[in-house]
Amino acid sequence: MLIIGERINGMFTDIKQALIDNDPKPVQEWARKQEEGGARVLDINVGPGVADRAAAMKWLVEVTQEVSDLTLCLDSTDFNAIEEGLKVCKKPAIINSTTAERDKVEAAFGLAVKYGAGLIGLTMDKKGIPKDSDARLAFAMELVAAADEFGLPMEDLYIDPLILPANVGQDHGPEVLETLRQIKMLANPAPKTVLGLSNVSQNCNDRSLINRTYMAMAMACGLDAAIADANDDDLVEVAAAGEIVLNQNIYCDSYVKMYKTR
Amino acid sequence: MLIIGERINGMFTDIKQALIDNDPKPVQEWARKQEEGGARVLDINVGPGVADRAAAMKWLVEVTQEVSDLTLCLDSTDFNAIEEGLKVCKKPAIINSTTAERDKVEAAFGLAVKYGAGLIGLTMDKKGIPKDSDARLAFAMELVAAADEFGLPMEDLYIDPLILPANVGQDHGPEVLETLRQIKMLANPAPKTVLGLSNVSQNCNDRSLINRTYMAMAMACGLDAAIADANDDDLVEVAAAGEIVLNQNIYCDSYVKMYKTR
Repeated sequence: MLIIGERINGMFTDIKQALIDNDPKPVQEWARKQEEGGARVLDINVGPGVADRAAAMKWLVEVTQEVSDLTLCLDSTDFNAIEEGLKVCKKPAIINSTTAERDKVEAAFGLAVKYGAGLIGLTMDKKGIPKDSDARLAFAMELVAAADEFGLPMEDLYIDPLILPANVGQDHGPEVLETLRQIKMLANPAPKTVLGLSNVSQNCNDRSLINRTYMAMAMACGLDAAIADANDDDLVEVAAAGEIVLNQNIYCDSYVKMYKTR
Repeated sequence: MLIIGERINGMFTDIKQALIDNDPKPVQEWARKQEEGGARVLDINVGPGVADRAAAMKWLVEVTQEVSDLTLCLDSTDFNAIEEGLKVCKKPAIINSTTAERDKVEAAFGLAVKYGAGLIGLTMDKKGIPKDSDARLAFAMELVAAADEFGLPMEDLYIDPLILPANVGQDHGPEVLETLRQIKMLANPAPKTVLGLSNVSQNCNDRSLINRTYMAMAMACGLDAAIADANDDDLVEVAAAGEIVLNQNIYCDSYVKMYKTR
């Protein structure tokens, strides 16, 4: 299970300030720190309220690559900003994300194929997040069909069934697990799956506990990647142990260390 | 998810000594301590090397009931010892356990019906633990059929698909999860499911981490109960959070406390 570090995001005040000051230091510190924590991909998000998102994305990608060789996950609703980021990525990136509406799908799959990138597809359209597993799967099927249509290799498609906070959308928890399980049956090879994990605990108590508990459950249902806090050791340890009990990595006594340093 | 406290077991030296000395104190301390930790059932096992297992079981049940009103889970391969324990249980107990062989099934289901007890059925026969999910399910189906035949209510049958330690039987991890999922489809109402959880981490590093990670996964696949360390706070917290994200309990900020004190 791949941890995509969530911390290089202008939603956090230190990254926001770094963008204002053109100061690469906080960005690069988080890049290093998340890699040490166990991240193998870094999410890059300019955050809200940025006038020139394309320039900000390009700069974040460039300064991150100065200190890290990890795959980058370019996170924006602005496909122009995504493309400016893709142009300067030294290795294939992941586009985060598209909904299942036709115009977004055309733009996003087009970019992914053009730049050899992965693509995160959300199981929703402009009407919002579906209530149940069946409606999520209908969107997942459209994303799988789009991968075929546009020629994106199925293993480069990451489907996110969209988890809601446990204190407001509690009924979504089991629906998302069922969706993860069934996404794996939609095609052979199957698309990959991903969650914006921290969302499950927004405004809840004991956030880390809820995050790691739900992550373990989602791994048992076929989760391949999570956008998450790579510096939450308790969480990273569950990812490591999860791979052991799912027989995805061979057990050794230092399995946590192996997970973090592979 | 019900935690069945595993600590009143003659395998532990303090309980073994208590049995030798006829000293109720260590037994009663563990009964209290496990209930405080979050256990809602207490496993009672006289352990190895006891000459008169029936007398020892009877004594353990009696001294435990002096301090605890929890349901007891009488854990022995000796059905005579089980029956002596059942005779003195003040409320319906759980019998732990029977394999799927015909002579054992007849004795165990007969006892369960006679005493209105629950029964843990193991998905194995004298040839040992099956390799995969299909073979486990074949035994599970025999146990479900026996519940029908002997008139045990299906919700009183707990099927244990038998997890092995991650360092020696790593391929069993995903097989047991798949078995749990499918057991729930064998009958309507479905039988309950249980695991001897601590077995998954025997002789492994970071046992608690492996236990709680696997428990979360098993909960997502339909686990109803786990014989486990009720005084492992990290584990009990995952059980509490697991019920929240599976929408089995309504979220409140004190959900961990609610789980422990319900």
